[in-house]
Amino acid sequence: MLIVMHHSATEEQVRCVAQAVAALGLTAQPIPGGQRIAIGVLGNRGYVDDATIRDLPGVMEIIHVSKPYKLVSRDFHPAPTVVRVGSVNLGDGFPPVVMAGPCSIESQEQILEAARQVKEAGAHILRGGAFKPRTGPHTFQGLGAQGLEFLHVAAREVGLPAVTEVMRIEQLEMACRHVDMLQIGARNMQNFDLLKEIGRLRFPVLLKRGLSATVEEFLSAAEYIVAEGNDQVVLCERGIRTFETATRNTLDLSVIPLVQSLSHLPIIVDPSHATGRRFLVPVMARAALVAGANGLMVEVHPAPEKALCDGAQSLTGEGFCRLMHELRFLQECLAGMASSVAGPSA
Amino acid sequence: MLIVMHHSATEEQVRCVAQAVAALGLTAQPIPGGQRIAIGVLGNRGYVDDATIRDLPGVMEIIHVSKPYKLVSRDFHPAPTVVRVGSVNLGDGFPPVVMAGPCSIESQEQILEAARQVKEAGAHILRGGAFKPRTGPHTFQGLGAQGLEFLHVAAREVGLPAVTEVMRIEQLEMACRHVDMLQIGARNMQNFDLLKEIGRLRFPVLLKRGLSATVEEFLSAAEYIVAEGNDQVVLCERGIRTFETATRNTLDLSVIPLVQSLSHLPIIVDPSHATGRRFLVPVMARAALVAGANGLMVEVHPAPEKALCDGAQSLTGEGFCRLMHELRFLQECLAGMASSVAGPSA
Amino acid sequence: MLIVMHHSATEEQVRCVAQAVAALGLTAQPIPGGQRIAIGVLGNRGYVDDATIRDLPGVMEIIHVSKPYKLVSRDFHPAPTVVRVGSVNLGDGFPPVVMAGPCSIESQEQILEAARQVKEAGAHILRGGAFKPRTGPHTFQGLGAQGLEFLHVAAREVGLPAVTEVMRIEQLEMACRHVDMLQIGARNMQNFDLLKEIGRLRFPVLLKRGLSATVEEFLSAAEYIVAEGNDQVVLCERGIRTFETATRNTLDLSVIPLVQSLSHLPIIVDPSHATGRRFLVPVMARAALVAGANGLMVEVHPAPEKALCDGAQSLTGEGFCRLMHELRFLQECLAGMASSVAGPSA
Amino acid sequence: MLIVMHHSATEEQVRCVAQAVAALGLTAQPIPGGQRIAIGVLGNRGYVDDATIRDLPGVMEIIHVSKPYKLVSRDFHPAPTVVRVGSVNLGDGFPPVVMAGPCSIESQEQILEAARQVKEAGAHILRGGAFKPRTGPHTFQGLGAQGLEFLHVAAREVGLPAVTEVMRIEQLEMACRHVDMLQIGARNMQNFDLLKEIGRLRFPVLLKRGLSATVEEFLSAAEYIVAEGNDQVVLCERGIRTFETATRNTLDLSVIPLVQSLSHLPIIVDPSHATGRRFLVPVMARAALVAGANGLMVEVHPAPEKALCDGAQSLTGEGFCRLMHELRFLQECLAGMASSVAGPSA
Repeated sequence: MLIVMHHSATEEQVRCVAQAVAALGLTAQPIPGGQRIAIGVLGNRGYVDDATIRDLPGVMEIIHVSKPYKLVSRDFHPAPTVVRVGSVNLGDGFPPVVMAGPCSIESQEQILEAARQVKEAGAHILRGGAFKPRTGPHTFQGLGAQGLEFLHVAAREVGLPAVTEVMRIEQLEMACRHVDMLQIGARNMQNFDLLKEIGRLRFPVLLKRGLSATVEEFLSAAEYIVAEGNDQVVLCERGIRTFETATRNTLDLSVIPLVQSLSHLPIIVDPSHATGRRFLVPVMARAALVAGANGLMVEVHPAPEKALCDGAQSLTGEGFCRLMHELRFLQECLAGMASSVAGPSA
Repeated sequence: MLIVMHHSATEEQVRCVAQAVAALGLTAQPIPGGQRIAIGVLGNRGYVDDATIRDLPGVMEIIHVSKPYKLVSRDFHPAPTVVRVGSVNLGDGFPPVVMAGPCSIESQEQILEAARQVKEAGAHILRGGAFKPRTGPHTFQGLGAQGLEFLHVAAREVGLPAVTEVMRIEQLEMACRHVDMLQIGARNMQNFDLLKEIGRLRFPVLLKRGLSATVEEFLSAAEYIVAEGNDQVVLCERGIRTFETATRNTLDLSVIPLVQSLSHLPIIVDPSHATGRRFLVPVMARAALVAGANGLMVEVHPAPEKALCDGAQSLTGEGFCRLMHELRFLQECLAGMASSVAGPSA
Repeated sequence: MLIVMHHSATEEQVRCVAQAVAALGLTAQPIPGGQRIAIGVLGNRGYVDDATIRDLPGVMEIIHVSKPYKLVSRDFHPAPTVVRVGSVNLGDGFPPVVMAGPCSIESQEQILEAARQVKEAGAHILRGGAFKPRTGPHTFQGLGAQGLEFLHVAAREVGLPAVTEVMRIEQLEMACRHVDMLQIGARNMQNFDLLKEIGRLRFPVLLKRGLSATVEEFLSAAEYIVAEGNDQVVLCERGIRTFETATRNTLDLSVIPLVQSLSHLPIIVDPSHATGRRFLVPVMARAALVAGANGLMVEVHPAPEKALCDGAQSLTGEGFCRLMHELRFLQECLAGMASSVAGPSA
Repeated sequence: MLIVMHHSATEEQVRCVAQAVAALGLTAQPIPGGQRIAIGVLGNRGYVDDATIRDLPGVMEIIHVSKPYKLVSRDFHPAPTVVRVGSVNLGDGFPPVVMAGPCSIESQEQILEAARQVKEAGAHILRGGAFKPRTGPHTFQGLGAQGLEFLHVAAREVGLPAVTEVMRIEQLEMACRHVDMLQIGARNMQNFDLLKEIGRLRFPVLLKRGLSATVEEFLSAAEYIVAEGNDQVVLCERGIRTFETATRNTLDLSVIPLVQSLSHLPIIVDPSHATGRRFLVPVMARAALVAGANGLMVEVHPAPEKALCDGAQSLTGEGFCRLMHELRFLQECLAGMASSVAGPSA
């Protein structure tokens, strides 16, 4: 921690700050500058609460150097974490993992058909929502427990592991019996009690970035899970909220190499929620792969609109099949590129 | 709902869209314009899911007119809601209600001293946190159940109703036995299961705006509670997340008159979390009052830093006392102003 | 400047960084911590360009302590600046200054009528736009030079100083002959050439905060003007761009006390552009006054819509008159409050 | 334009709104819904100013359907625009164009060496800044006219066209004599006078997206240039300002396919300014290419830090050379992928 004093801070004020630092059991080291004095705080083994110092007279600014996370940081744990979902390995050194399926499970037939389509196209994990967080209470909230059953049956039928979102602690036990990976949605990224309970489970978990979560908060949320003993955490970038409303959210792909430099946890991308518009999904999925994502989560519907009118442009089973073909193509390119240039630049 | 077609949309495409609208049981009314055709959708009694229409050929944009909330809207329910917390009335027609106390309950002595200070200064409700949502897991997480006991004792001792934050469903029953109002924090504003459970309780609830929640989402979250039967909801603006980092959050005071025009629920302001800096709290509290807030939530500590060094500038009991004096002064001015000009402008 | 090294940084890496610091003519002072080493940089007299250090091996983060502004900072120049516009004094120690008038000058009659209305209501400075920045080129762009003439005539007629926006350097000379204060709009806050030229003029200037400008950037823009010799700068908060679209911008009132703590320049508020909705203007104007603003800028139209239909709620001359009455009322309250409590809290 | 009335709007209020619409020379068509009435406005040939309608009694919301741009829209001009810079073609149907060089021109030697490096690596256009927009006035502001000379000599020497940023109208003539393309920086995206003057030049121009510009504002800024007769406009995404501070800006890659669907103008990406961190540049450059960018703008320095210490990770000439190799590799992959799957998905 660095305490920056006002230009006009008095010696007495500096002395008081040093005393306050000492009262926390830490050491204050003054760093005189050309224009002002700063006070380095030494001896802390983590984040320091600055409440007793922040408003002391003469204090201009307090700068924190330690991060609120440690277990998930690559700085302390350089080796990459590989998460195992069913028989699928997700993480550095393994091919990108694609999770696909409908946003909501609507019926046994629907999820079965979706499962067959994504399996045939080459997806590795089946996704489907039984509990749906919706902005307003007057819209479809998911099939609940019955949806979990339908998902379980469909996943077993096609031989894929399954992932589904959980929203409350009471759902955990049932969900664990029906799927192979739990998802924490963006709105629950800082539902700390849910994070802690899942941390005690030692079960693979997909943690989505909150709509307005900084990278530091994102990694700190993962730290909650890992701190309880569960290191099987996959991060998921799904777009952040910005002033731009032309897309549902703003997909922040630079977070992939950034998080990979800061943390040993794998990170995947959900281009469906990020863009909110079907025609943008495949292109952003391809870009995410090239940006180094360890996987993708893509919404695939068995196209109900086909009945209404021909030619609708959507990520149908067929569209997803084409995307998977492209992703495999790109993946081979990237492998070829890496060997041809002896490692990508930077 | 309004469906805007591309400039170059064909008649066949318009026909297909109209068909898709009809398949939803609604009526499509074409509105020919100078440059393009739009299609009005009639007959819906609420928000329409546009999934089957959004990507039809020729569709440029879909504009939703209906809001995802209705029960909390002033449009449908013009009369203001008054929320009763203990013997305190909060809402239009009643004087502003001030909730004050420490962020965290640290001990029986600390909350008792805080309770006496805020009571003496004229606060109406005692606040104190027993369950604390913290960005990282390595910091103080609150005293939990014991904190609730301490709060209960302190509130009874000074004769004030109490409010405390709940973070998970299991805490509701215990919390209801110890306090008079439940608080849902910003991070849980879209914890829809928690909202629903509290909706079933018919217990006063303070709902804080999420860090990046639009007014529409804020009101929709309140709709979740009211839809279950509990209309005793007080909204709370506590700053939103923006690009500006000089203050902890950006306090959005214009949301007060805006929400009051859209909804019949009362709304209060928390200047402490919004600014994150003590010297900004009193001035923003005064501004919030003048902006029409139905109340305030202010953090007051019994000043532990006093022991460390003299003269620290903070919202101590003394500082809060001065603020309450100013707020009463302002309130009288506002009453005088209203009668002198026969209602404030606009 | 503080250079934070990686947990695993080697001694050799620390040595290289120290060398790079020395190459800039500065002194590196290592600050060993419990988990990592940090390097304080001493001897700089202002902002240091970190380009040669940022990417050295072992460097985790660079933290700047010096601000990019100095002349406008209260830290170095504690005495408040008073800006004189015609015979009006604007700044600490003087009553709030209200600038009012139409967004655009449309005709001699219109600006004359507006001038009479705002003068009669008690405004201190007449505003009116001759050069209009518009999002698209197909909308009214202002009357230009003729508008300046109209404004000049109207201001002289009613005996008020005038302020108008300038958008390009060539307009400066003509504008200075017709008005008493130049305005730099939000979109030009970082039009550095315009800032420099105005800095050479020694003419009062109103600098609006950019849509996404941090307080640091806002003050740095003012620094451009003051650095050229012109300290007659008034800052203006006019709302920032956030994710919220229910209001045109988000009015950031906490910036008033914040800027007043950081800078000696006066700061006013424009609630018209900030909210974009007339019914919100008066309430936010009152809140701005209580938040300590040194003045206000309010749009007043001689109400063309009156002809169309009765009862429209807008800031007509009459509405502005009522607002001025309220502002005077509030101002007296604030004076009374200050003397009653011996200075407002904090 | 669609005018949404309050649930409780009276017939008289609807009639008044219809009258106000008629007064604008337009036609009002009521659209009765289940819960409220809406009024479609017909007959406008572009954006309608809603000032006289917005605040009429009973009006709840006004929704604009027409965009403030038309000339740059693909809706009206489906054929892609190809911009010719020297002998380089930039746009759909041509290979991605890479602009590279130093942020600032520091000396004749520096820009010459940079020019040779980027030419040898395969860049198509040389970039270099002579006029530099800097946040504060106390930092290097560029070499100005002399810098233009140096850039001109270097570009001629290596046989590349050159691009440089202009900040004020007076610089245009001189810049046009020295370079082949003008750049408008993010801070000047809404410097409408500069846009108009460049529009009159018929000279290739690179228009960077403003820090907080929506896609609609971005395209409207381009409309200013095209409306004056100059259609040689290349758009450039360079990151937007969000709450996230871990990267300098947030690179919004989804804007590439989005803009390509809305406009016929080419769009390129600047990963250097977007990320602000060298190790992120190559990976985001590769992702941008795959997202469909028509080109890239990359900062390349002849590595002054080499002298200070070995091993610095930066986009040196060598690093850029490797990146160009990768980009060519990827480009061939994309061509192969397109032919293998008969067009990329969506």
